[in-house]
Amino acid sequence: MMKDNVAAAKAALAHLDIEEREAAIKTASRDFFWYSPVLKTRLDHVLADFVVRPRNEAEVIEILKVCYAHDVPVTTRGAGTGNYGQAMPLAGGCVMHLRHMDKVREIAPGRVICEPGILLKDLDAQTKEASGQELRMFSSTWATATIGGFIAGGSGGVGSVHWGSLRDLGNIIRLRVVTMEEEPRVLEFRGEELARVSHAYGTNGIITELELPLAPAYDWTGLFVAFDDFGDAMGFADDLANEDGILLKIASVYEAPTAHAYFQRVKPHVDEGTHLVGLMVAPQSMDGFLTFLGRRPKAKLIYRSDDNDWPRDPGPIFEYGWNHTTLRALKVDPSITYLQVRYAFPEHRELVEKMRTEFSPEVLQHLEAIRMNGKIAFAGLSMVKFTTEERLDEIIRLHEEAGALIFNPHRYTLEEGGRQHTDDTQLSFKREADPKGLLNPGKMISWDDPDWSYDRMYAYPHLQAAE
Amino acid sequence: MMKDNVAAAKAALAHLDIEEREAAIKTASRDFFWYSPVLKTRLDHVLADFVVRPRNEAEVIEILKVCYAHDVPVTTRGAGTGNYGQAMPLAGGCVMHLRHMDKVREIAPGRVICEPGILLKDLDAQTKEASGQELRMFSSTWATATIGGFIAGGSGGVGSVHWGSLRDLGNIIRLRVVTMEEEPRVLEFRGEELARVSHAYGTNGIITELELPLAPAYDWTGLFVAFDDFGDAMGFADDLANEDGILLKIASVYEAPTAHAYFQRVKPHVDEGTHLVGLMVAPQSMDGFLTFLGRRPKAKLIYRSDDNDWPRDPGPIFEYGWNHTTLRALKVDPSITYLQVRYAFPEHRELVEKMRTEFSPEVLQHLEAIRMNGKIAFAGLSMVKFTTEERLDEIIRLHEEAGALIFNPHRYTLEEGGRQHTDDTQLSFKREADPKGLLNPGKMISWDDPDWSYDRMYAYPHLQAAE
Ligand SMILES: Cc1cc2nc3c(=O)[nH]c(=O)nc-3n(C[C@H](O)[C@H](O)[C@H](O)COP(=O)(O)OP(=O)(O)OC[C@H]3O[C@@H](n4cnc5c(N)ncnc54)[C@H](O)[C@@H]3O)c2cc1C
Ligand SMILES: Cc1cc2nc3c(=O)[nH]c(=O)nc-3n(C[C@H](O)[C@H](O)[C@H](O)COP(=O)(O)OP(=O)(O)OC[C@H]3O[C@@H](n4cnc5c(N)ncnc54)[C@H](O)[C@@H]3O)c2cc1C
Repeated sequence: MMKDNVAAAKAALAHLDIEEREAAIKTASRDFFWYSPVLKTRLDHVLADFVVRPRNEAEVIEILKVCYAHDVPVTTRGAGTGNYGQAMPLAGGCVMHLRHMDKVREIAPGRVICEPGILLKDLDAQTKEASGQELRMFSSTWATATIGGFIAGGSGGVGSVHWGSLRDLGNIIRLRVVTMEEEPRVLEFRGEELARVSHAYGTNGIITELELPLAPAYDWTGLFVAFDDFGDAMGFADDLANEDGILLKIASVYEAPTAHAYFQRVKPHVDEGTHLVGLMVAPQSMDGFLTFLGRRPKAKLIYRSDDNDWPRDPGPIFEYGWNHTTLRALKVDPSITYLQVRYAFPEHRELVEKMRTEFSPEVLQHLEAIRMNGKIAFAGLSMVKFTTEERLDEIIRLHEEAGALIFNPHRYTLEEGGRQHTDDTQLSFKREADPKGLLNPGKMISWDDPDWSYDRMYAYPHLQAAE
Repeated sequence: MMKDNVAAAKAALAHLDIEEREAAIKTASRDFFWYSPVLKTRLDHVLADFVVRPRNEAEVIEILKVCYAHDVPVTTRGAGTGNYGQAMPLAGGCVMHLRHMDKVREIAPGRVICEPGILLKDLDAQTKEASGQELRMFSSTWATATIGGFIAGGSGGVGSVHWGSLRDLGNIIRLRVVTMEEEPRVLEFRGEELARVSHAYGTNGIITELELPLAPAYDWTGLFVAFDDFGDAMGFADDLANEDGILLKIASVYEAPTAHAYFQRVKPHVDEGTHLVGLMVAPQSMDGFLTFLGRRPKAKLIYRSDDNDWPRDPGPIFEYGWNHTTLRALKVDPSITYLQVRYAFPEHRELVEKMRTEFSPEVLQHLEAIRMNGKIAFAGLSMVKFTTEERLDEIIRLHEEAGALIFNPHRYTLEEGGRQHTDDTQLSFKREADPKGLLNPGKMISWDDPDWSYDRMYAYPHLQAAE
């Protein structure tokens, strides 16, 4: 039963595109939170009261204004591919789904201006077609996720081996943002201001337009390279990513038996002991790559997308990397979940080996080579064979004690998924832009409970009750 | 008086484009060797017997074949902007000037195929016009030097802050090379083979076609940033170059009083104590750059090419960097010469400070941030107030003792300008490709005198006698 205020808001927005089908409302209330057994038990019942799909910024403003007037929470949704319940309406209310806002406004050398609801793949298709350019980086959910969701919820991904992370200066140029006030304001953020709303889960403003840098688009060659020894595989990816003249889009390392156990189309070409490296190399760098490869007799090139006799096409290499690795593992073994680890330069290789010695095979290493502060290091998206929440917490603790920073994907708040402290920039902008605290409630601890001690998992007090 | 064999070769080539004017022959026999007081005294008299300008590969083959038959040395010339007498015919004979071979053959996404004699600036203009692309890197002599001379004689330059050096895998794709044998052969080199002839000064083969990677062309914004403290300037350039999302083309550091004393058009805007940083930033990275700048209150932005009120345009920023710094200093103070230093990561800043403490102002620091093995470090092109050869040698020795590798620009041989040891790849290819040792003689010690001990400056025994 819908509360009166919610019903009133919905009625006031009835002239907009409102989703009425129950199944569709349920779908629009969920994301990939179920990757985490911890979140799965806690958020499975979460459901929006209604779903509205604005066609343009004016309608976004109208929705925010109406919901503000009626005290209705608004949770924004791109495509709902986030992993931490980011796009889930913990307190019910309105889900504002941006899929209609998918226009590209301008394409210029090195930059694009677009709306937030466009899929990454559609954006790339348009910039490529118009100018031979593409996004510097995208989440491996390129085919299904939106650019707005990537900026508001993501961190980096395919392309980060060259360009670093979304948070790095220069990887976002400008964001246009609507606030949730009595009279919503439209603001333009650049430079330091970008940190207010990027990776803020839509808790303090809605992005209605983005200006992003572009890189040249190439017909990237996909490659798999097999190794018998994990250290050789990791060293190969690390050293290759340090080759300044060889242009890469991704360099992933998969500890055995990941490739054999979870990569169906790769399986016939590897065995249980194969440690795999997945790569995308610019075609003009293939000669350089093959030269590098020739210097490493232990590396066996088993697949190249431009020349192979594999009976079944494995598809784009990036759909084996980043969180797609977890997805593939999960499909085969539903008891698998994952961790997000940062192995910083210069101890990154050592630290990975240490964690591997301690935890394999309970925790299998999956590494993504990325640039951090100018140096190649690893983002780890380790696959964890889940047993209990206590054991998961223990594994996390042991990583942190060893110096491997964890971004906990088993928490739905910004702070717990980050560095467990208040982000003053985001918090103080929320005070301005969302005075009633209606934007994606329950995701920012420092708003709800400034004195929270992080001694246990935060439980949002206004989380919908399960039936 | 021309020797008979030389006269016979010249006569056999009379149907080609032969330079007959004495002044032009003298010009075509010289390069920028005079940057070095050491080379100046030794090579000033060097003169070709004749100069021939082939129009295509067939004519190159003919010249090499005829000169081979008559035992006439052939020294190849791009534009003669090299600094170590590289393009000077130490034993006289034929200078083969490639200026007519300036065709672009093919432009594709990420690559270009061209002839060696095209000027860097003309190549960039054509690739930009046709495809919005440009060379990944070029020597600061972009306006006057050829691509063949850059590959055969250069090391890197503007663009190396992003792409590393020419020697790095992937920065040259393919070279087509003609040998000097009874029947010259035409070979195609890729991968490991490239090291045979790149940076070999044309001592073991003539490059007649090149395939090179391209990067996107942008309207780079030129910038000067002023500092009161040298360490702040150096740290600014280093940290900026480590910002993965900010795309740079060059990041140079000039110790005071370089800018005030030697940069005429910058002088009115700085004072004697100003340490300067010169930058070229992609326009889509300017927001990121300005954000970075805003975090450094000690940095004063004094010039940006896209918005300034300087009465006199300082011209392209890269013409203050690399060896153009030396050129500007030399013009004001002819007693200045230079060193080429490599300050390797991670001790690069410390080592620079150490050398500065030891030698300033006799040696003024000029640094170029470049990527080496994936990390930002510095190439130093220090300006040296020359007194004696002994003191110069001592300064070099003290650098090396401190751990700062020197590429000595006061030597005309490959080995002495490099790491003082035999390059087996180049030497063994010379045995094959130039059995009579006629290609650019006197530049490869290991060919002339395999047991040379490097205890003193090498003196080529067949160097033309001064009058
Ligand atoms: C298989 C798999 C692989 C993945 N790989 C990666 C990866 O490589 N890198 C990575 O960073 N992430 C990755 N993710 C997480 C996620 O897919 C990405 O971050 C994705 O780009 C999110 O886009 P979306 O449109 O689905 O956003 P949603 O999930 O819809 O939203 C994400 C967050 O942004 C908010 N939001 C959405 N649009 C706006 C807006 N316009 N204004 C304000 N807030 C808004 C939402 O409220 C939510 O909090 C992966 C997830 C899966 C399931
Ligand atoms: C002010 C100044 C700034 C400079 N800045 C840089 C810099 O930033 N980076 C850098 O690397 N260098 C720099 N240099 C050195 C030099 O200018 C460059 O290396 C330049 O690219 C050489 O091109 P060129 O056409 O003048 O070659 P040349 O001087 O004519 O030749 C260089 C060498 O290559 C050989 N050669 C030329 N063409 C061929 C061919 N087709 N096949 C085989 N051998 C050939 C010649 O015999 C010679 O040994 C600078 C020099 C000056 C004077």
